[in-house]
Amino acid sequence: MENEYISTEQIEKLIDEKNVKEIRRIFEVVPTIDLAEAISDIEDTKKIIFIFKTVKSEYTAELFTELKPEIKEDIINLMSNEQLAEVLEQQFTDDLVDDLEELPANIVTRVLRNVSKERRATINKLLNYKEDSAGSIMTTEFVVLLSNLTADEAIATIRQTGKNKETIYTLFVMDKQRNLVGIVDLDDLIFAKGDTKLTEIMNRDFVTVNVNDDQEEVANTVKRYDLNAIAVLNNDGRLVGVITVDDVMDIIEEETTEDISKMQLVTPLEDSYLETSPFKMARKCIPWIVVLLILGTFSSMVLSKFEGQIATVAILAAFIPVLMDTGGNAGGQTIALMIRGLSLQEFGPRDFFRIIRKESISAAIIAVCVGIFAFVWFSIEQYFGIVTNSGLGEPASIWLGNCWSAEFFFEVIKVSGLVSLTLTIGMFLSKMVAVLLPMGAAAMKKDPAIVSQPLLTTIVDVTSLLVYFGFASIIFNL
Amino acid sequence: MENEYISTEQIEKLIDEKNVKEIRRIFEVVPTIDLAEAISDIEDTKKIIFIFKTVKSEYTAELFTELKPEIKEDIINLMSNEQLAEVLEQQFTDDLVDDLEELPANIVTRVLRNVSKERRATINKLLNYKEDSAGSIMTTEFVVLLSNLTADEAIATIRQTGKNKETIYTLFVMDKQRNLVGIVDLDDLIFAKGDTKLTEIMNRDFVTVNVNDDQEEVANTVKRYDLNAIAVLNNDGRLVGVITVDDVMDIIEEETTEDISKMQLVTPLEDSYLETSPFKMARKCIPWIVVLLILGTFSSMVLSKFEGQIATVAILAAFIPVLMDTGGNAGGQTIALMIRGLSLQEFGPRDFFRIIRKESISAAIIAVCVGIFAFVWFSIEQYFGIVTNSGLGEPASIWLGNCWSAEFFFEVIKVSGLVSLTLTIGMFLSKMVAVLLPMGAAAMKKDPAIVSQPLLTTIVDVTSLLVYFGFASIIFNL
Repeated sequence: MENEYISTEQIEKLIDEKNVKEIRRIFEVVPTIDLAEAISDIEDTKKIIFIFKTVKSEYTAELFTELKPEIKEDIINLMSNEQLAEVLEQQFTDDLVDDLEELPANIVTRVLRNVSKERRATINKLLNYKEDSAGSIMTTEFVVLLSNLTADEAIATIRQTGKNKETIYTLFVMDKQRNLVGIVDLDDLIFAKGDTKLTEIMNRDFVTVNVNDDQEEVANTVKRYDLNAIAVLNNDGRLVGVITVDDVMDIIEEETTEDISKMQLVTPLEDSYLETSPFKMARKCIPWIVVLLILGTFSSMVLSKFEGQIATVAILAAFIPVLMDTGGNAGGQTIALMIRGLSLQEFGPRDFFRIIRKESISAAIIAVCVGIFAFVWFSIEQYFGIVTNSGLGEPASIWLGNCWSAEFFFEVIKVSGLVSLTLTIGMFLSKMVAVLLPMGAAAMKKDPAIVSQPLLTTIVDVTSLLVYFGFASIIFNL
Repeated sequence: MENEYISTEQIEKLIDEKNVKEIRRIFEVVPTIDLAEAISDIEDTKKIIFIFKTVKSEYTAELFTELKPEIKEDIINLMSNEQLAEVLEQQFTDDLVDDLEELPANIVTRVLRNVSKERRATINKLLNYKEDSAGSIMTTEFVVLLSNLTADEAIATIRQTGKNKETIYTLFVMDKQRNLVGIVDLDDLIFAKGDTKLTEIMNRDFVTVNVNDDQEEVANTVKRYDLNAIAVLNNDGRLVGVITVDDVMDIIEEETTEDISKMQLVTPLEDSYLETSPFKMARKCIPWIVVLLILGTFSSMVLSKFEGQIATVAILAAFIPVLMDTGGNAGGQTIALMIRGLSLQEFGPRDFFRIIRKESISAAIIAVCVGIFAFVWFSIEQYFGIVTNSGLGEPASIWLGNCWSAEFFFEVIKVSGLVSLTLTIGMFLSKMVAVLLPMGAAAMKKDPAIVSQPLLTTIVDVTSLLVYFGFASIIFNL
């Protein structure tokens, strides 16, 4: 049976009609994320409050988690302290901390005043971890089993203590000194004989992360080992939290969006695209364009110095865009492969020489093949008069019928040779720089994605222009 | 306790010494994925076979899954039929099908001959699903519970039938007619009273996917609803398979790599970067560069037609690269936001007008702000002689001391005005095209990531050049 769908209008109508029974039914059958989307578009927050008064708090707690920060803020403002405490009671600590990081200070204070004292301490601790560290995203609600239990006793403990934990599929086994000594999966407990000791079935050689590890590191580890949840240890090696696979999927999504944004010169948005105002969008986009515009000064400088050559051999200008674009395109390919490989930890700075070797071979092949093609293609362009070659004083082409002399042939060869040679060198250089920059960034523990194709293009543009006019001066005796 | 690490040399040494005891111990304590990486670098496959003879098949089956296709092929060739059957017996069907899709036909035949008859039928069916469809990645090993069971009976059934299933955390409830009527999570069973009927705890409003759905669709659904596993139904609505969250993480990784590759003009690699030969890499890179090089002909054509103008007002050429780059950069930002939003299903073609409205406002803000900055900056460039303005016949600049006339001032204004106006129009157009192309692709159910920034750049280049020389003709009376 497919799940039901509900629109904003439908739910708003139910609220207006105060149809409590139907609203409650809806919450039983429609996934909360779908409801949250419909409810987010209700303009009047007071109507949303009605839902919080009517529906069981196990549903509203989940609903609350999925709402947008602005709506959360409005809702908290409209709620009584009792209502607020009830909603907060049901929230997972890690979700709550995520919310608090986005809400204004007065709301944060009000929230903290309405949770239990122990929880307040936990929240304050989590809020203090560095942004995007394992500590800042972990949950402190996990199931601990003592190592002297049997499988049956462990299941009984889970039944007693596991109810509000984020996962009971991965369980953490501690000795009497509260050291983490093993990890056991629920399925191993289910399949074990009832009287088997935990020490016999638990995995003693488990993977962990440190509270200060970056979330991308955490995500890569969970993915690599196909874990359902990973233990987070503090610097003393004590278990302080757990990160589950659903959080990891969110991290992967967030990190990838960040990478793609940076690669294309957008400061990563904090909210989704649709929720970001055009003005905020402009603020995220303008700085990088301006930086590269300023860097573009170098190419203007170079071209300005060679104005004389351009005036003499006018055909030189016609190939400038294709030279720039092709160099940038070739480098962009390598940047994509580097950034993706580095962020998936397929390779790292340690593989530097292996990658330089591989990339220089493939760059050489690509540059030479494209160079040869370009030579032929540019010659065709001139013979067909697509680009006007007036090297002999008059424009010549097949249409004009005056292109069958040896002199014109050599003029064409000179131009095509110059452009395709520059292209070949530019592509090779571009691909080499495209390896060096991200690998260098990674070696200095910087995010390789800050090295974008546009930055590369700007660097390579200047080099290509210098090579272009350098050779032009020789070939055309300028 | 951190898990142990083992290098290729260490494991090779153990094999050479035939140290069976230590090899077996290693497999107990080191994660299989780490072992697979170390073992993959052993040159002589015969040595790897020794491991398959020594270690328990539950470990070797997992090891086999993680090895590279070439090594798998060698290993299968070196194995006896009995050994092969034993390894295959332990493989999950979905992993096996993935392998078979990559192995040569003679190996596939040999594998199929060494699995049970029923399994062969299943494998053949899975091999027939379209690549990247839910059917091609699902597993057929899942736990089915009858709806008339109680929680205790359900757990007993899981203990009996769940052993070799891919997950027991999500369980599928069927009525007597074998219709899927509900889904129950293992934790709900654990927390339920033993005599509760499944019909009381199961979720009747669950999300499913169809066998023919694309894997990206499946991944988005699993992520959206934070599922541990999702049911795959055939066209008759029958449960035919299950996709688990660990497979979904692989899909997300694969799809993102594909998107980034396409955005940067690389045909997605089938293997990891390090495993792809430079020649194969060249084949993946060259075609797109060549296509855009050919498209670049249009910009050469336009420039060639305006050779006269360039020769007369030589300073015009100096700003061509910065015009092209800035337009491309601005559009690239929008493309990144579009492709990411579309692939995460944050928005879709239905939001077309909302997005056009939003993007045209932000594009206008960005284009105008950058345009104003550019006007000032280009004027500075000319006054400081970074770009030579010889509009009055002689080059003039602050250094030459001859730039303080009203005539020179108006010359500078004309050039800066022309360039920054073209820039503003180019950026705005570029951002608009960057919305239209990916949204159009999405509306036609094509992958929006095929619309790359380089393609956009090439389109916008031509337009910008036409605008540039069009205005130039008016401003400079050419």
